Order: sequence, then structure tokens, then C-alpha cells
Amino acid sequence: EDLKKQGEAKASDPYSSDPERHPVLRINSKKPFNAEPPPEILTESYITPHVLFFKRNHLPVPQVDPASYRLQVEGLPRGALTLSLKDLKTRFPKHTVTATMQCAGNRRSDMNQVKEVKGLNWGISAIGNAKWSGARLRDVLLAAGFGPDVAKWARHVHFEGLDKDVTGSAYGTSIPINKAMNEDGDVLLAYEMNGEDIPADHGFPVRVVVPGVVGARNVKWLGRIVVSAEESSSHWQQHDYKGFSPGTDWSKVDHASSPAIQELPVQSAITVPADGAQIDRSDETLTVKGYAWSGGGREVVRVDVSLDGGKTWQVAQLRSGDKGQPDEPSPPPGRSWAWKLWELTAPLPPDADELEIICKAVDNSYNVQPDTIPPIWNLRGLLNNAWHRVKVKVTKD
Amino acid sequence: EDLKKQGEAKASDPYSSDPERHPVLRINSKKPFNAEPPPEILTESYITPHVLFFKRNHLPVPQVDPASYRLQVEGLPRGALTLSLKDLKTRFPKHTVTATMQCAGNRRSDMNQVKEVKGLNWGISAIGNAKWSGARLRDVLLAAGFGPDVAKWARHVHFEGLDKDVTGSAYGTSIPINKAMNEDGDVLLAYEMNGEDIPADHGFPVRVVVPGVVGARNVKWLGRIVVSAEESSSHWQQHDYKGFSPGTDWSKVDHASSPAIQELPVQSAITVPADGAQIDRSDETLTVKGYAWSGGGREVVRVDVSLDGGKTWQVAQLRSGDKGQPDEPSPPPGRSWAWKLWELTAPLPPDADELEIICKAVDNSYNVQPDTIPPIWNLRGLLNNAWHRVKVKVTKD
Ligand SMILES: [Mo]
Ligand SMILES: [Mo]
Repeated sequence: EDLKKQGEAKASDPYSSDPERHPVLRINSKKPFNAEPPPEILTESYITPHVLFFKRNHLPVPQVDPASYRLQVEGLPRGALTLSLKDLKTRFPKHTVTATMQCAGNRRSDMNQVKEVKGLNWGISAIGNAKWSGARLRDVLLAAGFGPDVAKWARHVHFEGLDKDVTGSAYGTSIPINKAMNEDGDVLLAYEMNGEDIPADHGFPVRVVVPGVVGARNVKWLGRIVVSAEESSSHWQQHDYKGFSPGTDWSKVDHASSPAIQELPVQSAITVPADGAQIDRSDETLTVKGYAWSGGGREVVRVDVSLDGGKTWQVAQLRSGDKGQPDEPSPPPGRSWAWKLWELTAPLPPDADELEIICKAVDNSYNVQPDTIPPIWNLRGLLNNAWHRVKVKVTKD
Repeated sequence: EDLKKQGEAKASDPYSSDPERHPVLRINSKKPFNAEPPPEILTESYITPHVLFFKRNHLPVPQVDPASYRLQVEGLPRGALTLSLKDLKTRFPKHTVTATMQCAGNRRSDMNQVKEVKGLNWGISAIGNAKWSGARLRDVLLAAGFGPDVAKWARHVHFEGLDKDVTGSAYGTSIPINKAMNEDGDVLLAYEMNGEDIPADHGFPVRVVVPGVVGARNVKWLGRIVVSAEESSSHWQQHDYKGFSPGTDWSKVDHASSPAIQELPVQSAITVPADGAQIDRSDETLTVKGYAWSGGGREVVRVDVSLDGGKTWQVAQLRSGDKGQPDEPSPPPGRSWAWKLWELTAPLPPDADELEIICKAVDNSYNVQPDTIPPIWNLRGLLNNAWHRVKVKVTKD
């Protein structure tokens, strides 16, 4: 009787079969589950372990049986192609890409402090870097019949997840065809994350990995791919994940006036020290750490750090690997998908009771981060890539 | 006797055969000739007439006889390919691209006001937009023997001009191979500008046009192309046209630490009204005009204008053609090489004696311009893409 009740309760809660999560995660929403790791742990490892990788779920985690899993590839003149997980693993070369993924809402909480925005209150850790392995989307589309005739009309590739809302409609979105078919685009139908099966929270058994592009297009629990002349008509493509002017409020927002976010702008943040931390005056030096990344395969080439609120700047050391380990090999130009971790150790400025520490990154197209948040404020709190600032107190012992 | 002397004087001055220039140009340097048009004229036309297009010469303009002109294509295993102008025009399809070109030093004068920099004192008009026609570099390299074997080792394409300094060494630079060979890269060996032979000041008979990439790589009076595993070792590739941190001065600059500028960051400027202009209080509205552009084929998707020093922002109207004419067709994603002209007409703010007008652009990777110049200041005064600000006085009649 009790067991039956429990069963019924579970059945009525679509989130009851969600996986276990690591207790260190900071939860922004339980159902759907959205959480991020503490910043100082995030930059401890160049490759983010999956348990620490931010979880951004729009809907309950679907339970997918790998044996009966089928991926539908549609929209091509030859008709639909149906692929099992085994097909994906055996019929196409396995390709591995180290790519950073970032939620469009990363650093929203700081934007929310300027003026209220709508959305999950992400800190600075809705970003992670992983090794993804799988079939190239390009190879799968070619096998499904993509050719010069299709290239004439095809403009977008739609992705649909197996995660569904109460009305049965699935999470969905699209990317431009040139990103999908470009030999250097590195778009994957990934079945491994960091050398293991993709975990349930990250899209088991197959997720799309679109390097250099906002997290929202990296559809998890992938069920269907459609080649199309049109962009996805989904809510998430047409009425969310777009940027607006700071003067645009909910009364006058016109979603058609703004393009769907794809590539993300240059970004960086300070993970150590934390905002509000106390530094001991007897320490002779201060070490500042963080991450830096840019969308579209652009490489971060410099991170400037200020210990005096932006008056003077020092150049941080960048690395593309774990501390004390050799860097990962440099990717070719335009395919720099992974973040850099950075660190600066500098003399503790004398006489200051408080320090405002700032970081800002530069990528290889020499784009930079804007100085302040208000001029990039937008009603959904997306795309916060203003300089990251933390204040610390310097105390006498 | 007098004529002879004049002849001798001319012969001893390598600049004596430089072409005539339009008197409206603002001259930054006579020898070599460097000049830009007045801002308010620049944005009168979507396609910049060649006489108004900024001239940025590093050396005297070489006089090239089109009949005996030869282009050398070297570095490929099959040996050198020599092409006449007629070969270029007849052996390869003619391809036309509308592309904006910008000098890395555009807007240097404003950076110079923050703290002195080294370089020509460009205003905001070292930028122009033209229709370029010619052979695709890709097609020429394929004809010269570029193939899969070459792709294994080739990393850069060098360009050498026919303009030479007193020691006989030519202007030279290079671009990455992926930009050169990408089908969507649109790199041209251009022999026409706006439908006519390329004028002497712009590279007659052939210049390289590298859309989305800094002016300095768009080599004029092209004499030699070399496919190489290495970047060009020229002064302009290795010891100039690089960005640095604001804390880097001439005593500690390490050119090897910074990548050569290729793609440029998002940019915009106000061409009307001019800084210091007087606005009549009896005017009910104020019209602000300007240009906006981004490197790397990224499209400008929004320009925000503030009439109150950045407190509030309004969205400007963008166009891709002349006023009152239909826009040019939208290019495919990643190939948006041309600028947008923009305009905002808004009520004149009441009660203000002075207005600080600001513009800032957003491109389709949602990169934005930084708020202020000091944090992007660099010793050569390059890459100034901070918000553009003009102050105007509002006077009572
Ligand atoms: Mo996201
Ligand atoms: Mo330049």
C-alpha cells in the first residue's frame, strides 16, 4: 500500500527519475534541475569533471534505453535516416573535441543587481570545459544524403530533444547550415563526455556539441535532426535566447528584431579570490585566478588583471592544461573551442584596505569585454560579458 | 636649365610620381601619402567613391605598366606560376565582393588624447566600403598546384607589394591559410574597385582584398604571393600591427607575445553631428548618423545611440544601401563583409545646454564595443573601438 502510494507519487512527478547530483553544486532551480559548481573548484581542473559541470535542464531528464534508442535524421530528399546508438558508434569515425560550453545566462546574477531581469540566477560558473567524442554531424548529414542539391536550399539544422513538457512538446532549436557542414565546424553528435558515456544530466545517450556556440543549441537527449530552409520555430529559438538594447523592456520587446544567439562574445571571470574574501596584509603577494573564453573558435590571447579598480593593468599567465602539466596542443586558427585558465601573482598593493580586482580578456579578433554592465543590460539577463569585478578586504593580523 | 633642375628634383623624390588626390581629403602625412575624407561626407554614400576612400600608403606609389605586369605565385611544389594581368582576368572567374576595409589605426587621434601613442593621427574616417572584383585567391592557388599534400604543411600565404623602400625592400605581410583557401573566405586578387580599374592609390593593377581583415593585410600593387609554413617575417607582420595591454610601454614591449592583427573587432562611429557642433534649440528633433562594422564576416545587428552620455539608449535604424534605395541582399552567415550605415532621429532632449552623444554597435556574435579608451590604450594607438562620443552645444536662437 505504502509502496504503491510512493510509486504513484513518483509517477506524478516527472522529475522523480532525475539522476543523483553532487552535493557541492549550487542549485538555482530543482525542477528542472539547474546548478553550478563553486567558482574556486571550477578552475581547479582544465577539464571539468562531469559531476561538477553546470547542469542546465529545461525539462525533466528523460530516461533513454540505449538499446532501443533511435536518432531520426529528416528533411533530406532521400527520406528519413534512422540510426541506432550502435550505428552512430560504428558507421562514422569517432571524433574528439575539447570544447567549452557556456550558458547564455552565465553571470546573470550580476546583471540582475543592476536592474531586475527574468531568469535563473546564475553566478559565474555556468560554464565548463570537456572532451566530447562522437560522430561528426557533417558525416551523418552526408550519409543521410546531403549534397550540392541540398546545399542550394538548406539553411538550418534543427535539433529536437527527447525531453518533453507536459503537453508533450520537446526542447528544440537550430543552428545555421554553414556551422553544421563546415569541415572546421567540429559539430558533434557526442556519445562520450571526458572519455565515458555521456551522463544522464548531460544528454545520455547522445547530445549535440556545437563548439563556440551558446549552450542552448547543444541539444541533449537528441531525438531528431531536421535539415531545413527555415530556422527552428521553437520557443527557444524565436522567443528566448536573444539579446536586446538596455532600453528595451517587456512592453516593447519585438523578438523578430533580434537574431538568435549563436556564437558567444569574449568572456572571463575571477574565480579566486571570491567576492568579499579577506586577504591578510602580511601576505606579500596576491594570487588571482580565473577562466577566459571566446565564442566562434576565437582564441583568448590575453587577460588583463587590475588590482586597483581598473587604474592599472597587469597581464596574467594563460594555460591550456592543468597546472604544472604541458598545455594541450594549439588548435588551428578559428577552431580554438576550449577556454584558457589564467593566473596572476602580484605584490599586494600597499596601504589599501580594500581592493577592487578586475579581469578582462582579449580574443584573437581583438574583441574585448565592455567595462560595465548597465549598457549591456537586457531584460532576460543574457550575455553578461562585462569586466568581472570582485572586492576583497585587506586586514591586519 | 630650369626644366632640367625640376626634372632632377622630381627624380630624386620617390614620391614625385604619386597620383593627384581629391582636395577634400584630410592629410595625415604627405610622403608617404595618408589621408581620409571628412566624416560627414563618408556616410553620404553606402559605396565609398575611390576618390574619397582613405589612402594608407606605407611607401611611394609604384608606377606599374599593366602590359608588362607579372604576378609571381611561389612556394608550391610544382614551382612558380607567373600570371599576367590578362591571365588573371581571363583564366579565373571574376568574383565581386562588397567589403569594408579599415585601417588598424582608425580613431587613433582619440586614443592619442588619452596618452601619447606612436602613429599617424587618424580621425574616424580611415574606413571605407567598396565593391571589389577580381580572381579568387583560392582559385589562383589551386591553379598553382595547391592540393591535399600542400594543405598538410601550408599555414600562411605571404603577399609582397611592388612598393619598395630606399633599401629596395617591399611592403609585405601574410594571412592564415584557412582564410585564403576557405570557399567562404572571399579573398580576392582584385583588379577593379567600384567597377573600374583599381586606382593607383589603391593598388593598380592588382591588390589583395581580405574581407573582414585589417587593412594592412590587403596588400596593394601585389607583386608576389608565397605559400608557406611560416608567417611573414616582415616588419609589418612581426613588429607592427599587434595589440598590447595598456600597461605595456616601449621599454618592455615583446612583439612575440602578441598575435598579428587579422580580424578586427566590432566598431562604430558618429559622423553627424561633428564634435563641437552647435544645435539649434528650436529644432524639435536631432538626427545622428554614422557607420558600424565588424571584422571576420560578423554582421552588425544593432547600434545603440545615447543622447545623454550613456544614461539611456535608443536603437538606430540600420541600412545596407543608399538612403531611400533598397538594401543590398543579405550575405550568408559569416560573410557579412560590408558595413551598415545607421541613423537615429529623436526629440532633442529638453533643458540641456550640451549633449554627449554616444554610439555603440553589437555584432551577431554579440560582441560589443568597450565603454572607454584608457583600458584598451596601447602604445601604437591601434584597435580603438571604444564607444564613439561627440559633444554638441545646444544654443537658443
Ligand atoms: Mo543556456
Ligand atoms: Mo592600416
